[in-house]
Amino acid sequence: LCDLSVEEYTGSMTRIAMVGAGNVGGALARLWIKAGHEVSVAVREGSSSKPIPGASTGLAKDIAAGAEIILLAVPWPAAKEALSSCGNISGKILVDCTNPVLPTLEGLEFGTTTSAAEELQQLAPQARMVKAFNTIGTPLLGNATFGSLQADGYYCGDDGEANSVVAPLIADAGLRPFDAGPLRNARYLEAMAMLWIDLAFRGGRGPTFGFRVLERPAS
Amino acid sequence: LCDLSVEEYTGSMTRIAMVGAGNVGGALARLWIKAGHEVSVAVREGSSSKPIPGASTGLAKDIAAGAEIILLAVPWPAAKEALSSCGNISGKILVDCTNPVLPTLEGLEFGTTTSAAEELQQLAPQARMVKAFNTIGTPLLGNATFGSLQADGYYCGDDGEANSVVAPLIADAGLRPFDAGPLRNARYLEAMAMLWIDLAFRGGRGPTFGFRVLERPAS
Repeated sequence: LCDLSVEEYTGSMTRIAMVGAGNVGGALARLWIKAGHEVSVAVREGSSSKPIPGASTGLAKDIAAGAEIILLAVPWPAAKEALSSCGNISGKILVDCTNPVLPTLEGLEFGTTTSAAEELQQLAPQARMVKAFNTIGTPLLGNATFGSLQADGYYCGDDGEANSVVAPLIADAGLRPFDAGPLRNARYLEAMAMLWIDLAFRGGRGPTFGFRVLERPAS
Repeated sequence: LCDLSVEEYTGSMTRIAMVGAGNVGGALARLWIKAGHEVSVAVREGSSSKPIPGASTGLAKDIAAGAEIILLAVPWPAAKEALSSCGNISGKILVDCTNPVLPTLEGLEFGTTTSAAEELQQLAPQARMVKAFNTIGTPLLGNATFGSLQADGYYCGDDGEANSVVAPLIADAGLRPFDAGPLRNARYLEAMAMLWIDLAFRGGRGPTFGFRVLERPAS
């Protein structure tokens, strides 16, 4: 991982540490490598887990230290421990993809007055939190254009500069970046995700749909 | 109102009692009258409130008794009393358009484990509840086509037959009827509505946008 720390920052290339490289994290890692970003994937100590082609691997705290952006894409029950494993991430951009879905998929563990993003922000108050990639199915990452329209990649956060770094990464994943407001709106994005999950998996629609805002230009 | 009770049911014409004829209810009343439905509007005893052209008026309990469908479109703080004013609506279809938004617009009064629709269903357990028209702005009712695509009119409910009566009314309001699953999913539709409200009014986007699900045909 030493090469991460000496890598020159070259324009639009971003160093991204993936904490969680399952369905969502793995798909994003591949798309971002293809788009020219430098991607590292967290593995456990002594792990020989299958690497993603083009991605380096390392302990979460090491790859987080070398990255500009940390993407948290683990199941919610593992999120707090995974975040903790990153060590001190003050000043880094943290992209939270989690949804606090009950193991039964029957609903959310909490919401309305808080959100996964806000709970995680409390554990890492100096991280620059952006909620993103939680309202779209993995099969649509890199493949979300329907006719001439892309599905939306909703994001929200209170740090405008962090938002502006994450938005192009959403575009690199084939989605239309859509600013959904302050971090507290993660409450509603996580609820939209729960609706998506219910329709896809309990309702039998399957995971190949996404939301988009339709809007006419202001007159 | 006597003519309501002797009116023959003629195919797709539906008798609809509007409880609440403000922005949402008023717009829907006009669209449904135009579409050939028979619309009545609840007024208070002794009220001389401005009628909607083509709509009859009456006390909530009287128009509810003569209707197949009761549409509840009042602000959430007035919803329980308005529902109560309808009297016994066992067996009737109740369309709930409410969102439990805080007076400050800063969030929802409750959610995640319940919803306005579920709370109201408890007060009228024999009503055939359908959640609808809560995730779209009034300016889009009758005017929600963007290019070749309509915004979605999400609805959910546990009574399939009631859903199938309400879906064409959603189409008559210029939206694409979209089945969002069981009534419990009102929890998520109400959260989507809160996101819509935040973006429209706090975020400065204005009320002329709507959500749509993009999907490719099953392969």
